[in-house]
Amino acid sequence: MSTGTFVNPGSAQVDTAASGHRDVTPAQERIEQRLVDNVVASFGACENPRLREIMVSLTKHLHAFIRDVRLTEEEWGKGIEFLTAAGHITDDVRQEFVLLSDALGASMQTINVNNVAYKGATEATVFGPFFVEDAADVELGGDIAFGAPGEPCWVEGSVTDTDGKPLPGSVIEVWEADEDGLYDVQRDAQSRTARGRLIADSNGEFRFWGLTPTPYPIPDDGPVGKMLAAVGRSPMRASHLHFMVSHPGARTLVTHIFPTGDPIGKKDTVFGVKDSLIKEFGPQPAGTPTPDGRVLDGPWSRTRFDIVLAPAST
Amino acid sequence: MSTGTFVNPGSAQVDTAASGHRDVTPAQERIEQRLVDNVVASFGACENPRLREIMVSLTKHLHAFIRDVRLTEEEWGKGIEFLTAAGHITDDVRQEFVLLSDALGASMQTINVNNVAYKGATEATVFGPFFVEDAADVELGGDIAFGAPGEPCWVEGSVTDTDGKPLPGSVIEVWEADEDGLYDVQRDAQSRTARGRLIADSNGEFRFWGLTPTPYPIPDDGPVGKMLAAVGRSPMRASHLHFMVSHPGARTLVTHIFPTGDPIGKKDTVFGVKDSLIKEFGPQPAGTPTPDGRVLDGPWSRTRFDIVLAPAST
Repeated sequence: MSTGTFVNPGSAQVDTAASGHRDVTPAQERIEQRLVDNVVASFGACENPRLREIMVSLTKHLHAFIRDVRLTEEEWGKGIEFLTAAGHITDDVRQEFVLLSDALGASMQTINVNNVAYKGATEATVFGPFFVEDAADVELGGDIAFGAPGEPCWVEGSVTDTDGKPLPGSVIEVWEADEDGLYDVQRDAQSRTARGRLIADSNGEFRFWGLTPTPYPIPDDGPVGKMLAAVGRSPMRASHLHFMVSHPGARTLVTHIFPTGDPIGKKDTVFGVKDSLIKEFGPQPAGTPTPDGRVLDGPWSRTRFDIVLAPAST
Repeated sequence: MSTGTFVNPGSAQVDTAASGHRDVTPAQERIEQRLVDNVVASFGACENPRLREIMVSLTKHLHAFIRDVRLTEEEWGKGIEFLTAAGHITDDVRQEFVLLSDALGASMQTINVNNVAYKGATEATVFGPFFVEDAADVELGGDIAFGAPGEPCWVEGSVTDTDGKPLPGSVIEVWEADEDGLYDVQRDAQSRTARGRLIADSNGEFRFWGLTPTPYPIPDDGPVGKMLAAVGRSPMRASHLHFMVSHPGARTLVTHIFPTGDPIGKKDTVFGVKDSLIKEFGPQPAGTPTPDGRVLDGPWSRTRFDIVLAPAST
């Protein structure tokens, strides 16, 4: 009753070098298409039209994949084993199916589909698994690090609508990994550092101290990490700082900003980097006076992020 | 850190009644296609050409699905939850991902792809999760039931190649559920009833006593069962008797036979029924003499299955 017993051990396998439906006879095409039609028809009694639409499309694309690559039974068995391993490593603090979706760009594509380009609105990117709802409220100009290790980074900017009108009172959630590449909750589920909630001032402006972002790997000790290694891909995410920005009447924006010159950059393993989201994080030598009139012991950086929210109806 | 936190709570969602890429602007199409191209390019360094082919095709079909249905972030989250639940119910004796593959016809399509139609060769169907390798050897004419409950059924037939030449010594594995719809291993992992291994005689003929097949549901207390209920589908499998037949030089055949007039029939929840595999299981009233010269207390049935194996090279 092991997974291995699901694999038909003896059947012949088609030429694995074949691509597409090459060498498939019309009679064979009819057999395969008839099955697709039967599965599609099985959803005909579904009373929820949206669910029916999703299941029919999923069926068509799943079968097209199997037919296009002429999936062998051994490969099918490896797919089952992969999903099983992903299920077994997933728990309350590890979500391998989200990592899989991320690594295949499916999370980013879902973000694209749901945040359509609108005038000059700031682009969205992946949400990631590390947002928490109960981050501390931080005064404008305050420090969201709460002691998390890393180089200080001054972040300032504005929130406007697509006509340039400031949006005072916008709620700005920010969160990021520390210089060791870890989020607070990866160290301790109860910890709340390197994150905070700010409120834009009467001009729609905001400012805070955070940490200069650094690259880090997604958790790569599970099946997704093995997949990335097998295909020669890095598990590293581009350095980034998370934002979620909301205002009544505006489409909530979930995004990151990415420093220019990042060693990972466009090779981001979750495909989250967009040109418009790459910002200069200007390095500041030790001793450079800060915007809030302090002198820090070591170097720091500064950046600006002017955020444009689309209308809620888009 | 629950699954719920992965869902972007605030972004606008597109019209869920939209189908295909309706209402998607050319600029938006370009953004979405660029992401597909980036993900495909990420597999460019994969040194295994077959793995690269599979990952590229999977990526294209997965993204086409998301774009075609304009998948909402809430729906994406439900998909993640479904896979997580499937992973958590899966163990050594329950394989929810195989059930999912079965219920979407993906298992049957994989069988189709790997067992291409060849002359008059007997068609293949799904393997199922209940084969075990150590079934008892049974003499021709013997009883594979080993006490499993059900109506006796006399099964006879032949094994030939596609030119009609008998294949003596063919190994014939048979297995089936009992009249309660359960396989031996579902009652007790160590039990070996209603299954056996036979060897065709010098004329390629075989015969044995088994049980008249009856319909039964796939395990439907998990996420796949919930999916079937949500779309208005039955979890029932058509009545069937499993065969796996092998001979040196022949393509191993994994198949079932299905009784005519079965109440489930073509509504088989795993899409395993093919016309050529539906056989008459003739009902025999109590007292009808059996082919091996016995008189049974109750009614029994009889059927014939002439098996044609394709060459191993097909």
